[in-house]
Amino acid sequence: MAKKFSELRAAMSAEARAQAESAAQAMLAEMPLNELRQARGLSQKMLAEVLQVQQPAIAKMEKRADMYLSTLRSHIEAMGGELEVVARFPDGAVKISNFADLGKATPM
Amino acid sequence: MAKKFSELRAAMSAEARAQAESAAQAMLAEMPLNELRQARGLSQKMLAEVLQVQQPAIAKMEKRADMYLSTLRSHIEAMGGELEVVARFPDGAVKISNFADLGKATPM
Repeated sequence: MAKKFSELRAAMSAEARAQAESAAQAMLAEMPLNELRQARGLSQKMLAEVLQVQQPAIAKMEKRADMYLSTLRSHIEAMGGELEVVARFPDGAVKISNFADLGKATPM
Repeated sequence: MAKKFSELRAAMSAEARAQAESAAQAMLAEMPLNELRQARGLSQKMLAEVLQVQQPAIAKMEKRADMYLSTLRSHIEAMGGELEVVARFPDGAVKISNFADLGKATPM
């Protein structure tokens, strides 16, 4: 049986709680996939080569509002990043670990 | 054209950069969906009622290693949380905004 959230929090050191608070408040940049790719200095063509697909597949993918987590993970890994899936609650945030081994990108 | 990551970072105040650093370093609790549900004090039965599905559907869903983002979002919203999709890079993290309006949970 998992512990209750309140118990988990109570067991954290003051320092860990303070870190968690600033994590919750930190403003992360927020952008769609196409802007992220551009911010990483990558073209659709480059990403298509890494993922071994045709360029239009990247264009289409960047417009989708829903997709499998494995698809998104491959896409982010092809950009050199790592996918994190977080559930945020008013009293804290939790990383979801179900998807840790999904869709490894093609080795570069 | 989106700005380069390095430009975005340079434009951040020292305070914002410090916050972003501690966000990157903060240790979030990490757990699978079934443990998260238990940590929120919810049973499969309660969650099944919110999502208007049968209890076995929840059990099955909690064991899946891949699923649509919309499915995951509904599941997390039914627990009272919010899904965040983050791409983490060695030099910073970005929230992916493509999926912001997906799969709103059934009103409670």
